[in-house]
Amino acid sequence: MIVVMSGEATADDVRGVVDRLHELGLQENISSGAELTVIGAIGHIIPEYEEMFSRLPGVVEVVRVTKNYKLSSREFQHVDTVVDVGGVKIGGASSVVIAGQCSVDSEELALSTARAVKAAGAHILRGGAYKPRTSPYAFRGLGEEGLKILAAARQETGLPVVTEVLSQQDVEAVAGLADMLQIGARNAQNYALLEEVARSGKPILLKRGMSSQVEEWLLAAEYILNQGNKQVVLCERGIRTFETATRFTLDVNAIPLAKELSHLPVIGDPSHGTGRWSLVEPVARAIIAAGADGIIVEVHPSPDHALSDGAQSLTFENFAKLMTNVGRVAASVDRPLATG
Amino acid sequence: MIVVMSGEATADDVRGVVDRLHELGLQENISSGAELTVIGAIGHIIPEYEEMFSRLPGVVEVVRVTKNYKLSSREFQHVDTVVDVGGVKIGGASSVVIAGQCSVDSEELALSTARAVKAAGAHILRGGAYKPRTSPYAFRGLGEEGLKILAAARQETGLPVVTEVLSQQDVEAVAGLADMLQIGARNAQNYALLEEVARSGKPILLKRGMSSQVEEWLLAAEYILNQGNKQVVLCERGIRTFETATRFTLDVNAIPLAKELSHLPVIGDPSHGTGRWSLVEPVARAIIAAGADGIIVEVHPSPDHALSDGAQSLTFENFAKLMTNVGRVAASVDRPLATG
Amino acid sequence: MIVVMSGEATADDVRGVVDRLHELGLQENISSGAELTVIGAIGHIIPEYEEMFSRLPGVVEVVRVTKNYKLSSREFQHVDTVVDVGGVKIGGASSVVIAGQCSVDSEELALSTARAVKAAGAHILRGGAYKPRTSPYAFRGLGEEGLKILAAARQETGLPVVTEVLSQQDVEAVAGLADMLQIGARNAQNYALLEEVARSGKPILLKRGMSSQVEEWLLAAEYILNQGNKQVVLCERGIRTFETATRFTLDVNAIPLAKELSHLPVIGDPSHGTGRWSLVEPVARAIIAAGADGIIVEVHPSPDHALSDGAQSLTFENFAKLMTNVGRVAASVDRPLATG
Amino acid sequence: MIVVMSGEATADDVRGVVDRLHELGLQENISSGAELTVIGAIGHIIPEYEEMFSRLPGVVEVVRVTKNYKLSSREFQHVDTVVDVGGVKIGGASSVVIAGQCSVDSEELALSTARAVKAAGAHILRGGAYKPRTSPYAFRGLGEEGLKILAAARQETGLPVVTEVLSQQDVEAVAGLADMLQIGARNAQNYALLEEVARSGKPILLKRGMSSQVEEWLLAAEYILNQGNKQVVLCERGIRTFETATRFTLDVNAIPLAKELSHLPVIGDPSHGTGRWSLVEPVARAIIAAGADGIIVEVHPSPDHALSDGAQSLTFENFAKLMTNVGRVAASVDRPLATG
Repeated sequence: MIVVMSGEATADDVRGVVDRLHELGLQENISSGAELTVIGAIGHIIPEYEEMFSRLPGVVEVVRVTKNYKLSSREFQHVDTVVDVGGVKIGGASSVVIAGQCSVDSEELALSTARAVKAAGAHILRGGAYKPRTSPYAFRGLGEEGLKILAAARQETGLPVVTEVLSQQDVEAVAGLADMLQIGARNAQNYALLEEVARSGKPILLKRGMSSQVEEWLLAAEYILNQGNKQVVLCERGIRTFETATRFTLDVNAIPLAKELSHLPVIGDPSHGTGRWSLVEPVARAIIAAGADGIIVEVHPSPDHALSDGAQSLTFENFAKLMTNVGRVAASVDRPLATG
Repeated sequence: MIVVMSGEATADDVRGVVDRLHELGLQENISSGAELTVIGAIGHIIPEYEEMFSRLPGVVEVVRVTKNYKLSSREFQHVDTVVDVGGVKIGGASSVVIAGQCSVDSEELALSTARAVKAAGAHILRGGAYKPRTSPYAFRGLGEEGLKILAAARQETGLPVVTEVLSQQDVEAVAGLADMLQIGARNAQNYALLEEVARSGKPILLKRGMSSQVEEWLLAAEYILNQGNKQVVLCERGIRTFETATRFTLDVNAIPLAKELSHLPVIGDPSHGTGRWSLVEPVARAIIAAGADGIIVEVHPSPDHALSDGAQSLTFENFAKLMTNVGRVAASVDRPLATG
Repeated sequence: MIVVMSGEATADDVRGVVDRLHELGLQENISSGAELTVIGAIGHIIPEYEEMFSRLPGVVEVVRVTKNYKLSSREFQHVDTVVDVGGVKIGGASSVVIAGQCSVDSEELALSTARAVKAAGAHILRGGAYKPRTSPYAFRGLGEEGLKILAAARQETGLPVVTEVLSQQDVEAVAGLADMLQIGARNAQNYALLEEVARSGKPILLKRGMSSQVEEWLLAAEYILNQGNKQVVLCERGIRTFETATRFTLDVNAIPLAKELSHLPVIGDPSHGTGRWSLVEPVARAIIAAGADGIIVEVHPSPDHALSDGAQSLTFENFAKLMTNVGRVAASVDRPLATG
Repeated sequence: MIVVMSGEATADDVRGVVDRLHELGLQENISSGAELTVIGAIGHIIPEYEEMFSRLPGVVEVVRVTKNYKLSSREFQHVDTVVDVGGVKIGGASSVVIAGQCSVDSEELALSTARAVKAAGAHILRGGAYKPRTSPYAFRGLGEEGLKILAAARQETGLPVVTEVLSQQDVEAVAGLADMLQIGARNAQNYALLEEVARSGKPILLKRGMSSQVEEWLLAAEYILNQGNKQVVLCERGIRTFETATRFTLDVNAIPLAKELSHLPVIGDPSHGTGRWSLVEPVARAIIAAGADGIIVEVHPSPDHALSDGAQSLTFENFAKLMTNVGRVAASVDRPLATG
């Protein structure tokens, strides 16, 4: 941490900063120039200090020189983490496709979707049993019944299953069935839930909050890693901006940036990231071209009957087309789709 | 719900929409003009339908004509809700000031803060025992010990206490002590927690999510009201924007807008909404002038020693000055500060 | 400027930075600690250097310690600037109200509006003759004809006139008539126009760009001041955010912040800042309570007939009510409305 | 245009809407249902009407059913526009790469850059002679001298040249030299300049404003098309969001969306869109994978000496690598890079 003093800071102001450093068990390193004085702080720095020192008289700026996250950083671990989801590797040599319904709505439709995405070459099945809905009056998922349907779909297709968990109380039940637990964007800073899912020991698919900066997203991952669970996959799913023609703005910059800053695998969600089915395939291609380790896509046998997210769901036919075209792009960046 | 068909929609497209309406038990009302056809849907409309119909062939737009929230709307209840927090009324004839430390850090400092805010005329004491922190390595509050300190502060000053709850598992403990439970911005769409706090029967201070639209904020309130708990106070605390000179952008428009759309009381948080102590008083005055029912302000005996949010905390002296100046503005809009 | 070197920077990296400083005629001041090395740069620093040094090997951060704007800063001029617009002082002891039509649409309506706002106590008349419209097919103002109508309105009421200029070619004509030239939000970074209006010598009303940070807004003012024109009034008029219930989000934080950073007067525009007439009065009160030097408000004899911005225009009756209520708030912050 | 009346609208309210339609020479088409009345407006609708009718008593919503832009829409022209820039076709079968310095700084560096980008396979040379700078004290380009250097670079390499124009007064001089005129993000809603460059008859590279919605961007293009100049290329260059780790957020969704809504070619700018050179190549790949017709990239012989945008400029070596890797992605989406 570096404390920059204003050109008009007095000797008393400098002493004030140094005294506070000593109070906290830190050492100082003072550099005085013609126009300003810079005080380096040496010792164990915690996030609080940055703000605390910014309040002291004569201080113009406090600069953090180490990152707030550690376990999720590239500095901490140079080699890429590979997450194993029921035998499927995310973050390895191949690109991975997760696909399925937004909400599991019936056994019949869920099974037909599972078969279709398997046939088209998807690697992991997604499906919502517990759905976070902006309105309390919207369909909130089939709950345990939905989990059972997903288990049946896994049994039939052999695809591992990822599903969202919303409540600390449901973690045990969901972890008992699913191969991977998803934390949705609305719970991206629900730290109690992050720690609870971490303790399940299952791989975690961590969506970025819709207003989380990349650093906050990595700090959310840090909550999980800090519980001893290293199996975290980051998912960019669009952020809130002023653009209303799309549901969210998929932050494609965040994909190579997260890969540069962290060793964790990163995937992208073109369905939520756009909210318009006609944009899903081109944005899926872009996600892979940007260096992501995979995508997660919503598919429905009849999107205009879907109980949620129909506007952004692909038909089986469009999903098969996406697989072909995303596959070509994946090969062009030397991360071909895994083959069954 | 109104389904607008494109000028090039075929008779089959129109029939497709009507058939879907019938499938869902709804009636139609068709109006065909030279350039377009409009289909009104009559019956029980759920939020899902809007998106579902937008997928059908020939449809250019689906317009919702009723709001998604109901219990929190002005249409549902014309008269203002008044929330009673340990005898203090929020939403009544007087403006209310909630003040105290961001995090309760020690009994001594907490009690001295409680005495100071009481002396300056505050009506309710705030203080964090459980703190949501972006980093897992930051100070996360004293927990139960903090709750006991708040109880002691209440006993000594007579001020009711509001404190945040982060985890479903803590709701019972916090509700056992506090007069009002706070849902923070990061949990604004943590629906499991919203329903859990609602069931405690305590008044709820519901902060707006940092990327929640006003409608989503009212829908979060709806989750609480829908559990039968009518004691909800909305709190505008700043939204995420591109401006980095302040920590958040306090959305002053949202205050009169929420009052127009809803019968619930609305307060503002100039401390988090600005993140700079020098802006807290002017923005507090603005919040009251805009028609809010009160403010919530961070105060610390020595802000540059605070374990969190020191940059935005007021000293006792500055808080006393704020009370005088906010009091004058409150009187000018005929909502004087309540007097002890 | 301070260049912070990473803990792993080599002696060569440090030398690289120092060599570059010398190349640019700057001196260095090196402070080496256990964990990092900090190099202070002494001499004439230009904005480019920050980015240039951030590219050099071993550099983790470059910290600017002086502001990019100078003439508009409080450091440069401690005392508040007062701008004189045809005898009306903005930035002095009284709050100022600018009011009138968005677009001048006919002599009759313009004159009746001018009389009404004068009668209600407004100090300056606004009215658009040249209108920036998002669509080329929308009404773009009456042009010179509109300027003549404004001149007639000034003659009859004695109110000074402010009007927008869109094109370098129109500056002379507009400056020949108006008492103050307005730069709209869409031209907030049209530097050619900023310099052209500056050279007219007229007072300038400089709206903040809808995506300008406060620093960029002050730098836009700097373009005008740098041409020798010191008569600049800043106007906060709402920024682009994700909230769609209002047209823009009025950034109330920016008002006290701009007053703190700059000596220039600051006013607020609750009409564009909200886009909803029912929010105009409460937000106008908030602007004044936050410490602004005035407001600018849209008024129309029959807002539902207005050729632009009818949704946010006040009727004469509502404007008169606003004047009374804003006047009470202005008095409560010791900045009463100026009286004719 | 459809006017939706509230359930509580009176017969008088409906009559008010109909009377206003008749006043404006429009016809109505009324559909009354159990819960609401919908009035379709038939005739020539202008953008103003939407807002005007939203003010009338009893109206809950006004829905526009035709787009505000016309000449730039896919409905108006189904077939893709191909823009010819000195013989290079943008929007045709091949992907196009525009590359060069942000600011032309010296003849020597500019020529060496031109040779390097030509050698690596770029199709058009970019270079700034007139630079819009946030600060009036920053380097603002060499002006006419810069134009002459670009002419020399064209002569030597045969690459057509695109350069930005900032002022109406410079249009003639720039059009006399350049093969394509660029409108930068800061002038994206400077309508006077848009019309002036349109009248030059040159192809226009139109950058999206940093806070422009896709519709506003197409309306800016409409200003040019409406002057009879059909040679417009749209450029997505990043929007303003809350994310600060990157300079802007490249809106990858906007690329396929603009292609869907408009027949105009669309390219992307990964240099400004990210602001970090290490992200330029992956984001360039993503832009092409999303369906763009090309990219525009900043290259500098020694980025850490660049007078502007060094942090986002590629070295010759990194640019050559980008060309290879973008070329592979372009081939995978059947839009290979054009070969000299």
